[in-house]
Amino acid sequence: MTNKRIVVIGGSAAGPKAAAKARRMDQNAEITIIQREAEFSMASCGYPYYVGGTFDNRNQLIETPTGVIRDSKFFMNAKGINAVGETEAIEIDRENKKVVCRKVNSGETFEQEYDKLVIATGASPFIPPVPGTDLKGITTLQSLKDADYLRKVRDEKKIKKAIVVGGGLIGIETCEALALAGIDITVIEMLPQIMMFLDWEMAKIIENYLKTRANIITGNEVVEFLGKDGVLTGVKLKNGTELACELAVVAVGVRPNSKIASDAGIKTGERGGITVNEYMQTSDPDIYAAGDCVEVKHLISGDRVLAPFGDLANLEGRVVGQNVINEGSAKFPGTVQTGVCKIFDYVAGATGFSERIALNSVGKDITSVTWAGQDKPGFMGAKPIIVKMVADNKTGRVLGVQCVGPGDASKRIAIAATAIQAGFTVDDILNLDLPYAPPFSPAIDPVITTAHILQNKMLGRMNGISCIELKKKLDDGEDLFLLDARGPDEFEEMRMGIGETLIPLGALRKRLSEIPKDKEVVCFCKISLRGYEAAGLLEANGWKNVKVLEGGIAAWPFGREK
Amino acid sequence: MTNKRIVVIGGSAAGPKAAAKARRMDQNAEITIIQREAEFSMASCGYPYYVGGTFDNRNQLIETPTGVIRDSKFFMNAKGINAVGETEAIEIDRENKKVVCRKVNSGETFEQEYDKLVIATGASPFIPPVPGTDLKGITTLQSLKDADYLRKVRDEKKIKKAIVVGGGLIGIETCEALALAGIDITVIEMLPQIMMFLDWEMAKIIENYLKTRANIITGNEVVEFLGKDGVLTGVKLKNGTELACELAVVAVGVRPNSKIASDAGIKTGERGGITVNEYMQTSDPDIYAAGDCVEVKHLISGDRVLAPFGDLANLEGRVVGQNVINEGSAKFPGTVQTGVCKIFDYVAGATGFSERIALNSVGKDITSVTWAGQDKPGFMGAKPIIVKMVADNKTGRVLGVQCVGPGDASKRIAIAATAIQAGFTVDDILNLDLPYAPPFSPAIDPVITTAHILQNKMLGRMNGISCIELKKKLDDGEDLFLLDARGPDEFEEMRMGIGETLIPLGALRKRLSEIPKDKEVVCFCKISLRGYEAAGLLEANGWKNVKVLEGGIAAWPFGREK
Repeated sequence: MTNKRIVVIGGSAAGPKAAAKARRMDQNAEITIIQREAEFSMASCGYPYYVGGTFDNRNQLIETPTGVIRDSKFFMNAKGINAVGETEAIEIDRENKKVVCRKVNSGETFEQEYDKLVIATGASPFIPPVPGTDLKGITTLQSLKDADYLRKVRDEKKIKKAIVVGGGLIGIETCEALALAGIDITVIEMLPQIMMFLDWEMAKIIENYLKTRANIITGNEVVEFLGKDGVLTGVKLKNGTELACELAVVAVGVRPNSKIASDAGIKTGERGGITVNEYMQTSDPDIYAAGDCVEVKHLISGDRVLAPFGDLANLEGRVVGQNVINEGSAKFPGTVQTGVCKIFDYVAGATGFSERIALNSVGKDITSVTWAGQDKPGFMGAKPIIVKMVADNKTGRVLGVQCVGPGDASKRIAIAATAIQAGFTVDDILNLDLPYAPPFSPAIDPVITTAHILQNKMLGRMNGISCIELKKKLDDGEDLFLLDARGPDEFEEMRMGIGETLIPLGALRKRLSEIPKDKEVVCFCKISLRGYEAAGLLEANGWKNVKVLEGGIAAWPFGREK
Repeated sequence: MTNKRIVVIGGSAAGPKAAAKARRMDQNAEITIIQREAEFSMASCGYPYYVGGTFDNRNQLIETPTGVIRDSKFFMNAKGINAVGETEAIEIDRENKKVVCRKVNSGETFEQEYDKLVIATGASPFIPPVPGTDLKGITTLQSLKDADYLRKVRDEKKIKKAIVVGGGLIGIETCEALALAGIDITVIEMLPQIMMFLDWEMAKIIENYLKTRANIITGNEVVEFLGKDGVLTGVKLKNGTELACELAVVAVGVRPNSKIASDAGIKTGERGGITVNEYMQTSDPDIYAAGDCVEVKHLISGDRVLAPFGDLANLEGRVVGQNVINEGSAKFPGTVQTGVCKIFDYVAGATGFSERIALNSVGKDITSVTWAGQDKPGFMGAKPIIVKMVADNKTGRVLGVQCVGPGDASKRIAIAATAIQAGFTVDDILNLDLPYAPPFSPAIDPVITTAHILQNKMLGRMNGISCIELKKKLDDGEDLFLLDARGPDEFEEMRMGIGETLIPLGALRKRLSEIPKDKEVVCFCKISLRGYEAAGLLEANGWKNVKVLEGGIAAWPFGREK
């Protein structure tokens, strides 16, 4: 038997992982990686932190934990893998089972024969079709070259003003990196909110915070890049505004690099990614695909979605590495599109459906709730976080969880992501046995507390009102009685200023007569725990239309009197 | 209809939670808490951090997040609950449905009638039956009074030497607190290891670290407390050693306070806790119990176990609060005995079965594996952690996960605890979609990587050897070839010194002839990733008896040459 020939197109995350796993499965296979860039296995998610100065040694992006550069020599010596850099795969000849490759520098072409082929071509940043994109000073933050360029910008300290086009995950990470370099940043997002993986009001909390460090413009877009002598001087927005800048980073999303596959007649999906089955096998059984170039199953909706996340690329690559050696030996179940992002001293994360997506996907028969509180006991140096949970009314299944704030959101999203992939209902989360000690969490973890409130709401024990619903009532001029159940000191220090009446919870039993019975009453406090208790007390005393403002003042994104 | 009378015995965690939830369920119920201490809702898990100086304001242990002391007045005003402090429940008269109570100070007794009774009496520290326990200078760290006493010790700075009896969770937290107070600490643990919720070798890693901050004696016990004029001067150990000390904190575990229940004919279990069903209802249908005084179901074994954790006390209390108002409306499923503990700059946590307990419970048909690595990418300031995972061979179910190290172990235990409660198999964890960004984790989370290795081991793709197995072979004088696959610089900096040969992975293909084919070969590196690749290479080249040292040097607990 001759040795199996495995060819991998793409040397970033999924490709090298597939190659390495294939090697471990079969020490005799001939494994080749074809990589367009010069480098391999770049830690591309680390680029913003290199640009932002979290670390200064660029090699850390391309070396092993023990400091060995992952170059062709490393791949050959440590793994017996033939890693060919600066070489582009330009065509897949499925009939003859070979890949036509071209050396980037010399233009020389050659053919690489395969028994099994892996397509791990990743994704490319989308560049909006507006005038001026060829001006000097416009970049993306997608490649190591981009990172080098932006790091140089940081180190040279010449550029004073920059625009980030796009307020998604990479846009916001780029914003942070450049702001940390001392550059005056403006983020321009076409949609009404940044970070579309969050619901509007959760994203607004991040936006409010981010505005203390950068300029954020939503609901507007760049219609032209302006320049002089071929060099960027500013951008023109849809509303006519012109903003001067010396640098623009475009981060409006990525598109899967699936052309080489579709050109070869391999099936691609509605979202432009390569179609794969649960074995990560394409429509050609000898060809697999993994990473940002594929569409994978969404584990809640069952739809095929893009999920360009570095962790999934690695996991998919590992599955492919097994299957190219031993067909059908490993499955990749799919994604719940879990993501997390650091934003200066805040964190934002989400897993599963946002309320917006749940409404589109499941319909109106869902319940969502927002909780605000602390990530550990106050005496341990707690930081605030806000959790939003969405569930299906019919099944009780948790559809999604979002978490934002300075506190440890990444842990809560990790818990929630695991729970959602387990198909947990709200009931399943109510009594989760999680690790508790004061340095790490409150006695009841925020994920569980949020499930408690969601249960209360679903059972009708709590009549919650979201900040968006309340804002609409206020804007519509509805005649509400707004009850702030905090103490006078707290009221002096911080208050909504939306016409509320301060009645501290402890005094409420004696001051019931101040509250009209014929109006809708909305109770709240800093986080609405006392608001919830106040509502219960009113209901027990005959009030019929009482609501609790979910998340209280802490989760109110609209600005306060003070 | 008259108002329902709810009496709650115990005012620490489960009791107030049950009372508060009952109030929210029924605003008309008459709810009374009988509490022996003067304080209510003490954050008892915070005592070590108050003693250790993490915070100085004692009130933070007994106040709400907004600074209101949770005293009788607070309970009445904010919750309409009659909280009676310094009052002991001394007898339950089930026939007449009343509790006989006694004022602690006056000795005056009275009766409290109930429709539904909640027993939340907690647990008391076990004091070993040895001479001298009545000497001045011996304490526990169980009550707020204890915390006050030990905090005074810290503040007065008079005591120089102290003994902590017991190396469990509370013993180690106490050790840290007193060491931070500048006191010379010796921990004495009767068993062969500290922290019995961990397997020996995982606990040993903590012990090795802890020895840089305190003295640790295992496999020995205090047989007498020595004193002069009624004041502690030292302890005598079983092996005859006498240690001088001015303070001894006894932390050898707690016993459920179930006597008031068993005296009343309420059923208790083999472990001394009150027996409850899934509704937290005792053998008397009008009496519920929650917190450290009960036995709850272990979700893997199905056995009834004690689970004296603050988070579970709160969750159980919430379940009881619902059921006393609306019988059968809420269930508490049980525990996987999840716990976590900070030890200076290290963290140790566990969920589900340790390997030791799995062997006892499931039998020999299990597989365990140890992984060592970093909690995030190196360029983000990674810290090391070690994960051990145990699974059932027949079902593939993950039975337990332990995690220790300076890195973020609490997050990994939270993920693992959720997965175990979901009944996840190793396969279910292989491709978990967790939140990834460089500030929070490596591209593949340590929990997932450990599952990958466990899968490799279970499928026979990796022939792992644990540190304990290797140590035994070394001690037995077996003739092994020990292959360190790291680089020369690393070898100079740190090495095992167990007779190993250094052959860097990158040079191995050319140096195969140096490795004997007739000996058992054990490969390793710092974390045994290169060790694993070396083993694969040897196997592919005809070596038949090759093993990988799990966790590598990082998880080797036996001491190194350097």
